[in-house]
Amino acid sequence: MEDRLMEDKIKEDRLKRQMAFSLEIDKEKNIFRQTHLSGKGRSENDAEHAWHMAIMAYLLREHANGPVDIARVILMCLIHDIVEIDAGDTYAYDAEGLATQKAREDAAKERIFSLLPEDQKTELTALFDEFEAYETPEAKYAHAIDNLQPLMLNDCNGGADWKAHGVSAEQVYRRQRKVKLGSERLFGLIDQIIQRNVRQGSIKP
Amino acid sequence: MEDRLMEDKIKEDRLKRQMAFSLEIDKEKNIFRQTHLSGKGRSENDAEHAWHMAIMAYLLREHANGPVDIARVILMCLIHDIVEIDAGDTYAYDAEGLATQKAREDAAKERIFSLLPEDQKTELTALFDEFEAYETPEAKYAHAIDNLQPLMLNDCNGGADWKAHGVSAEQVYRRQRKVKLGSERLFGLIDQIIQRNVRQGSIKP
Repeated sequence: MEDRLMEDKIKEDRLKRQMAFSLEIDKEKNIFRQTHLSGKGRSENDAEHAWHMAIMAYLLREHANGPVDIARVILMCLIHDIVEIDAGDTYAYDAEGLATQKAREDAAKERIFSLLPEDQKTELTALFDEFEAYETPEAKYAHAIDNLQPLMLNDCNGGADWKAHGVSAEQVYRRQRKVKLGSERLFGLIDQIIQRNVRQGSIKP
Repeated sequence: MEDRLMEDKIKEDRLKRQMAFSLEIDKEKNIFRQTHLSGKGRSENDAEHAWHMAIMAYLLREHANGPVDIARVILMCLIHDIVEIDAGDTYAYDAEGLATQKAREDAAKERIFSLLPEDQKTELTALFDEFEAYETPEAKYAHAIDNLQPLMLNDCNGGADWKAHGVSAEQVYRRQRKVKLGSERLFGLIDQIIQRNVRQGSIKP
């Protein structure tokens, strides 16, 4: 009986911390990206982007270069932008922002994941770091999806986001080339999309 | 060589369909719910809600009544509202909308999942139906999270959404009672939250 009560107490305490974290990450819905929704809609936020990525990662997994633990990929997709609650979104072609991105994101990672029970903080931090390190098949494939999802939206809007920022083909290829590490086939698709946008004048040659 | 070309052709064709589906579901970000974001923010949309649910389902899985296949739960969470792209969001206390909900959602399910390759259409339709049927441990637990997530947001806003709709404790309990089927512990938490909101006058006794 005592053991049961103690166990309940521990579970209640864990639940309280898990709920604090769950409420905190609601703020990710207010972090807006440069990408616009299809139909030339409003800016996309990080939570929607992560949701979209998770589904795409699942559906497109047959195109990964090799076998991936898809559950881990999905979790990576879901949490990979949580640090932006504090650190904000850094645009892919913003050199100044990119220089301080790491330090801002490290501080955010420590603060936000510390809301969780210790074991879950460790687990999610490791998953976040794995994504960032770009080394495992799962991280490489998740990054491929992280690249493909906004490119798909931008393309369906006639490349309006590239046009607005005056982005060149060289810049887009530099950003996209590592997709190959996760999926040759998805890189092939991205290459077609870039070429089409160069031809129609939305990306500078 | 011929086989290789044929296989490539099939993969390319699958990818095209998967991308058509991926682009289509972008519209879920424009389906707004009755729930408001924390900090008395704007209305929440379905894509954000699904993202939030998926992470909560993963983190809170130790509180499910029994073992669940968490990967399947997460997928259910991610796709459970896709039909609302055509059918719209039906508010939990809107009796008229609830009467036609099933027919509207069935038509949407057929149209949207048909964009996918046949095997993936079958798989996602089954997953969607499993959630709706409320029978497996995974579906019961996913529903518990589907209930808890908006309740958490509403509670952190002082129960403003309940107040705006003049909702009674009886209505909330009727809506929430099945959470017990997925998680006794999460129902305990929900019960505490309802009682607190009754005491502070945001839910009618």
